[in-house]
Amino acid sequence: MKHEKIRKMKERVYIANLALPKASLVKLTWGNVSEIDRELGVIVIKPSGVSYSKMTAEDMVVTDLTGAVLEEGMKPSSDLATHVILYQTFLEIGSVVHTHSKYAVMWAQAGRELPAYGTTHADTFYGAVPCTRQLTATEVEEGYEVETGRVIAETFAELAIDPQAVPGVLVYGHGPFTWGPEPQKAVENSIVLDEIAEMALQTESINDKVKPIPNYLLDKHYFRKHGKNAYYGQ
Amino acid sequence: MKHEKIRKMKERVYIANLALPKASLVKLTWGNVSEIDRELGVIVIKPSGVSYSKMTAEDMVVTDLTGAVLEEGMKPSSDLATHVILYQTFLEIGSVVHTHSKYAVMWAQAGRELPAYGTTHADTFYGAVPCTRQLTATEVEEGYEVETGRVIAETFAELAIDPQAVPGVLVYGHGPFTWGPEPQKAVENSIVLDEIAEMALQTESINDKVKPIPNYLLDKHYFRKHGKNAYYGQ
Amino acid sequence: MKHEKIRKMKERVYIANLALPKASLVKLTWGNVSEIDRELGVIVIKPSGVSYSKMTAEDMVVTDLTGAVLEEGMKPSSDLATHVILYQTFLEIGSVVHTHSKYAVMWAQAGRELPAYGTTHADTFYGAVPCTRQLTATEVEEGYEVETGRVIAETFAELAIDPQAVPGVLVYGHGPFTWGPEPQKAVENSIVLDEIAEMALQTESINDKVKPIPNYLLDKHYFRKHGKNAYYGQ
Amino acid sequence: MKHEKIRKMKERVYIANLALPKASLVKLTWGNVSEIDRELGVIVIKPSGVSYSKMTAEDMVVTDLTGAVLEEGMKPSSDLATHVILYQTFLEIGSVVHTHSKYAVMWAQAGRELPAYGTTHADTFYGAVPCTRQLTATEVEEGYEVETGRVIAETFAELAIDPQAVPGVLVYGHGPFTWGPEPQKAVENSIVLDEIAEMALQTESINDKVKPIPNYLLDKHYFRKHGKNAYYGQ
Repeated sequence: MKHEKIRKMKERVYIANLALPKASLVKLTWGNVSEIDRELGVIVIKPSGVSYSKMTAEDMVVTDLTGAVLEEGMKPSSDLATHVILYQTFLEIGSVVHTHSKYAVMWAQAGRELPAYGTTHADTFYGAVPCTRQLTATEVEEGYEVETGRVIAETFAELAIDPQAVPGVLVYGHGPFTWGPEPQKAVENSIVLDEIAEMALQTESINDKVKPIPNYLLDKHYFRKHGKNAYYGQ
Repeated sequence: MKHEKIRKMKERVYIANLALPKASLVKLTWGNVSEIDRELGVIVIKPSGVSYSKMTAEDMVVTDLTGAVLEEGMKPSSDLATHVILYQTFLEIGSVVHTHSKYAVMWAQAGRELPAYGTTHADTFYGAVPCTRQLTATEVEEGYEVETGRVIAETFAELAIDPQAVPGVLVYGHGPFTWGPEPQKAVENSIVLDEIAEMALQTESINDKVKPIPNYLLDKHYFRKHGKNAYYGQ
Repeated sequence: MKHEKIRKMKERVYIANLALPKASLVKLTWGNVSEIDRELGVIVIKPSGVSYSKMTAEDMVVTDLTGAVLEEGMKPSSDLATHVILYQTFLEIGSVVHTHSKYAVMWAQAGRELPAYGTTHADTFYGAVPCTRQLTATEVEEGYEVETGRVIAETFAELAIDPQAVPGVLVYGHGPFTWGPEPQKAVENSIVLDEIAEMALQTESINDKVKPIPNYLLDKHYFRKHGKNAYYGQ
Repeated sequence: MKHEKIRKMKERVYIANLALPKASLVKLTWGNVSEIDRELGVIVIKPSGVSYSKMTAEDMVVTDLTGAVLEEGMKPSSDLATHVILYQTFLEIGSVVHTHSKYAVMWAQAGRELPAYGTTHADTFYGAVPCTRQLTATEVEEGYEVETGRVIAETFAELAIDPQAVPGVLVYGHGPFTWGPEPQKAVENSIVLDEIAEMALQTESINDKVKPIPNYLLDKHYFRKHGKNAYYGQ
């Protein structure tokens, strides 16, 4: 049964990885999706640097909760350690996605949080999507991928943001990570993040004095779709 | 016969909804199209939060003219109440479309009306496409979707704009609504609105002193295609 | 034999019209291509307001050199009179294309000529692509399409531009016209014009002090591809 | 055996050329890829001005190391002389790609080097992608393609850049050249260059005081993927 559960995780992680180039969020071999099953004690993640067109579900890499590979086969994504820290810090999430999607990267490179300029943003992210501080030389040299996870955790802790309400982040000079309860939702959050990043960029160009939407509108749109009073969807 | 008419409405509304992702105007499950038949006393609208790839014509939701669901089945789009107000206020229109199309959203988020900078705009919209004021906290909390319809109506009344001459609006901090005599035309108006929103954005970047086209050119292009002296088309 | 020649013109004009949406230069029913055979005394042009997916080669409209329709059938494009003036003024050209392609329209709306910022521009257009002055109210009201042709002719005459060396123009507040010896080349010129219009727009955003390329580079690229010393191509 | 090696080079060069329009890096007949086999003493390059849809692998042109054509058939790309100089100067490279890809051209037209604003850049280019100086009138008139190669060589020499660490350049007022050990990698470098050119352009628009990433992050990302301590990929 454990074997069957892992086979299904690999299938979901594989499909979610393929969804990234399909949604034009990644080029070449960039980007990776993982899923965790805490009870089972496993994480499944994309192998490192493998072409999307040649990859199979079987190639997905299975590790324990510390990121140690459990099966012979391919090497996991070099960003695995970041995913592991996110799973250890955000206990409610079930999947992590990392891309270099164009518009989210622009904000990450600019080192700015993404303001909530409209309801498209508010439907998925309950407030600004934060941008981390820059990693120090020591952090980069001594444990780059682990420290990337830690600086995300630090950012959410310091700003007191609930990672379920704001399921994504911009890593300074690098790019976005998003998450969700399972791979499909985590990928959808990456799609939304890139779309609202593009919208926000040009919103500022149309009106350089634009302000974020008021909290009552943010509340309305977010809680139309989330929580016990949600009335969006079937 | 009523049954047959409703079946055809569902088919048209279904096709018009599918046209939105095809024209890259919506992502995921965003966006919705409705049609009204005032004699029959029915509105047909997209169900809420259903994937475009899984939706069938049969899933379209049938309501009365107040938006009360008439058939068992799916829940209607959460924006239905806005459509109902638009149908009650703009008596000549037969279909309403709502999207979060990228460029129209940028202007809505920027809180600016879309100026008529050229003939591409004038062929469909007879003058600037207005942007509503921001809804108040009370309006959002007590009847968000109804009040969204009312603020559109208020905007057209205050600016004395004919909704047939300007078949679309930007809702502040939210996005566009367009309309037309039937679903296909209403969707076309959404396509044009997003295209001219993109053109206007970069027109200002090429020339930050650009002015709207003169009224005589606006008249010429609009009346080439509309009204009794139209000479465009077959 | 005249019949056969016209049949082939219709086929070429039809194919060239279809190339416009394929190259993402037109939406809906916007845009039109025509071809002239001066010996035969005929112009063939797209019918007005007909969907690209339903149009057939047979639907192309045949007129004489003044634009009077010669065959029963569809009405010609409402821009025909502009094409006629261009053929009467620019005696060496064999085909005219009009689109509302996005980036060329932005420059036309901004009322600015398109500067030659690089060799991509110079390979096709030997210097800046001019923008006409705005038409007067009288011109628009008394003969809009004819006057559009005349203001293009006036622009080329006043600036002493050779229409074969600069096979395109921006009509103020409206959009681009391009031309060429035959339909395929005229369409290619529209493709290039929109591409260089986009490049120029962002070139200015990267460097707001950018200058056009020097004349010797303009000469080199243009004459690599054109004239008796051309050495590009087979 | 020499014949078989050349046949395989033609096949690789053909496939790499087709990859350019597929990745939306070229329009019409723009762009060209070549490969060198120094032992064999041959260069294989795209023919000049031939349509991508009609081109076959057999049409690829074979020359010696000075660019003299060795087989009867088509004329080589007019940019061949630039490729030859690059092969003579950068002895470790095995393939050269030239495109007029949109975003790289914008920076080349703006005459600015492309700063390393993020890790997407650093994964492929170890520092800023340089922009050459403008060619003089004499250089353009007396040997344009050769001098284009020489000014690239001059740029890398003066800035002391290793062409393997920064496998691409912007030629002032013209566009990008990239290279790599073999055609596929050289094409991938063109894809990355255009992507990071777009990202950098809008990064500056989001934050007009943005600085390049610190050297320690540049080092980390570049050496994750390159050199003897690389740990990205299988």
